[in-house]
Amino acid sequence: MSDFRQKALDYHAFPTPGKISVEISKPAETAQDLALAYSPGVAEPVREIAADPENAYKYTGKGNLVAVITNGTAILGLGNLGPLASKPVMEGKALLFKRFANIDSVDIEVTHRTTEEFIQVVAAIADTFGGINLEDIKAPECFEIEKALIERCNVPVFHDDQHGTAIVTAAGLINSLEVQGKSIEDAQIVCMGAGAAAVACMQLLIKCGALRENIYMLDRNGVIHSRREDLNEYKSLFANNTDKRTLEDVMQDADVFVGVSGPDVLPASAVSMMADKPVIFACSNPDPEIKPELAHATRQDLVMGTGRSDYPNQVNNVLCFPFIFRGALDVRASQINDEMKVAAVEAIRGLAKEAVPQEVLDASGYEKLEFGPDYVIPKPMDPRLLPRVARAVAIAAVESGVARAELPENYMLD
Amino acid sequence: MSDFRQKALDYHAFPTPGKISVEISKPAETAQDLALAYSPGVAEPVREIAADPENAYKYTGKGNLVAVITNGTAILGLGNLGPLASKPVMEGKALLFKRFANIDSVDIEVTHRTTEEFIQVVAAIADTFGGINLEDIKAPECFEIEKALIERCNVPVFHDDQHGTAIVTAAGLINSLEVQGKSIEDAQIVCMGAGAAAVACMQLLIKCGALRENIYMLDRNGVIHSRREDLNEYKSLFANNTDKRTLEDVMQDADVFVGVSGPDVLPASAVSMMADKPVIFACSNPDPEIKPELAHATRQDLVMGTGRSDYPNQVNNVLCFPFIFRGALDVRASQINDEMKVAAVEAIRGLAKEAVPQEVLDASGYEKLEFGPDYVIPKPMDPRLLPRVARAVAIAAVESGVARAELPENYMLD
Repeated sequence: MSDFRQKALDYHAFPTPGKISVEISKPAETAQDLALAYSPGVAEPVREIAADPENAYKYTGKGNLVAVITNGTAILGLGNLGPLASKPVMEGKALLFKRFANIDSVDIEVTHRTTEEFIQVVAAIADTFGGINLEDIKAPECFEIEKALIERCNVPVFHDDQHGTAIVTAAGLINSLEVQGKSIEDAQIVCMGAGAAAVACMQLLIKCGALRENIYMLDRNGVIHSRREDLNEYKSLFANNTDKRTLEDVMQDADVFVGVSGPDVLPASAVSMMADKPVIFACSNPDPEIKPELAHATRQDLVMGTGRSDYPNQVNNVLCFPFIFRGALDVRASQINDEMKVAAVEAIRGLAKEAVPQEVLDASGYEKLEFGPDYVIPKPMDPRLLPRVARAVAIAAVESGVARAELPENYMLD
Repeated sequence: MSDFRQKALDYHAFPTPGKISVEISKPAETAQDLALAYSPGVAEPVREIAADPENAYKYTGKGNLVAVITNGTAILGLGNLGPLASKPVMEGKALLFKRFANIDSVDIEVTHRTTEEFIQVVAAIADTFGGINLEDIKAPECFEIEKALIERCNVPVFHDDQHGTAIVTAAGLINSLEVQGKSIEDAQIVCMGAGAAAVACMQLLIKCGALRENIYMLDRNGVIHSRREDLNEYKSLFANNTDKRTLEDVMQDADVFVGVSGPDVLPASAVSMMADKPVIFACSNPDPEIKPELAHATRQDLVMGTGRSDYPNQVNNVLCFPFIFRGALDVRASQINDEMKVAAVEAIRGLAKEAVPQEVLDASGYEKLEFGPDYVIPKPMDPRLLPRVARAVAIAAVESGVARAELPENYMLD
């Protein structure tokens, strides 16, 4: 067994199994304490909530509680291993919510037969929480599930594998184009992969200014075009009326390549065909669509990002999901809408252009980080992400009319 | 607003809403920590659990995690106020699980239309947890729900309002009979109330030796007898072939009165009719079936218990549920069976007969507590309950063949 493998197993097993716990946040030692926490005192907040459901935010943990919910059908890069096997990932996500945004988070693994049953189960328990983070659910079911739950739940529902990935990728990609002296409006974009993350990425890039007809999406069967008859409704959104059929056809003069597919599917020859000053985001993890060394050797004028922490420009969902939920929870947003997603993109982009504090350099092991080809996205350990992204998201929620509470005072500074 | 009411609301609202939180139990500061807790390290326990589901107990929090689940149809004494309004109670229960038995516990409030839908929702999420505590679900639906979930879930399912109440009542009651020099086998028992707690109490008393034909149960319509045609299947279990119709009819020469109904329904005149050395457990809360002052004034030879902390012999579920789950979790019991319930009764009974440590006296405000009419049940703050009850329950699980893990080493002392 490899050293890292053993360390990972030991981390999860000792001294106690798992990595999150539930703790008491109020005095609970004496009989007097417990008379307030439970019978008879607890009847008072019960009556207040029965009189006005919004009081649940005042007297319970609901407003700071996010459920991480899965059916285990698309666990990391490991595939469909079922709900129980996904539990370490969901507990890990809960850990990240706490670590980065002080959000209480619990994991729920759902066993079900049909998509409709999964939707029904999540909708039935949704009121327990202030928000729902869907995780590791395979496409195309994830689209239908998210859509139905957004309609049926009173709290924000966010499929991080789609939108978290899309937000961080869009931030990095638009900044990369800026470094290259290009604009998203003019960019010819190739998207390799047509799953949940791919569809969400391209939809968000369009919200950020990209033209739909400038986007070429590819699945296992090549370019998605309007004469194909094997497309689900989500892929159909990206079907171009084109004669281009292969990766090489669409890479000719492309400005941007986004890979959300699998390892080593982008040959150097295709990179050679791209326009001047290209941008490649090869997000397949741990092995990107093309090795950064090979890509940079092929094109010296390249800006590149990957999903890996050991190369520059890491696309890491943790740059977004804790903070977009922090902002949404803090103004009791009824949903996480496009305006909030675009606000997150802009906040993340903006941060990458600012001087980097010494503590961030220390934590990430760099001597210097300056906006440019090797630094288009903030580092995951950057403590400015929390106030910056959460504030931008909360303001966007208020301005787009989905907030049910006012902006907290600490958001109104400056 | 009364002072206590304001204190209870403030307790729940400040400094943060609610009374439980989710915390990180492993190192999670550095990028290295997070590489173990989440991607890529988390893939290792995922693979282990996919290979053998039992590994979930080794690498996740499942084995120490109990869900407190309700539909809000019978909240405390407040009735059917819906799932959301019950959240403070469920969070309170989670707090008690942690406070008394170091069990991680989260609340789940379920919105549903039919009983079958509630069952389906709970069964679908059950694998997330090591055990399920059903709470505040009204009768008779609670019987069907618990039965179905015990069949469908791989983890213990326990409706505390039934069995927790039954276990503590049985312990107090059998000890009271002992104090009075009587035996449960010979006792004539009157049970006022025919809801969830009443049915469970009487079923457990039978397991402990009471004779079914010596039990008279009463509902709103008087004595439950075999010629009534308005009985559900649970009440029917207690239908006697008798001419007795009223409370007075059955109280004549009764040894035991158990009240799980409502305030002040037991008149002093009926108490006068009981046999020598009677036992009354008036569990309606906060107002018992008869005021202790009145009962004791009527019968000097009485042993009495209530649900209240300000009188002797408090029937409090917290004497049982944290510890029965502790024992069940520690040997990974597949269910909480009758053997485990009876073991809990015996462990609680036994503790009341032992010398009381000074710290328990201090915490409960007594100068002296000695087995007798005013002390037939241990005090809720007694720290000996955890090791004693959990151990008895775990041993019973092992001996009755429902344990899936061996007795932990610390249970085998002495």
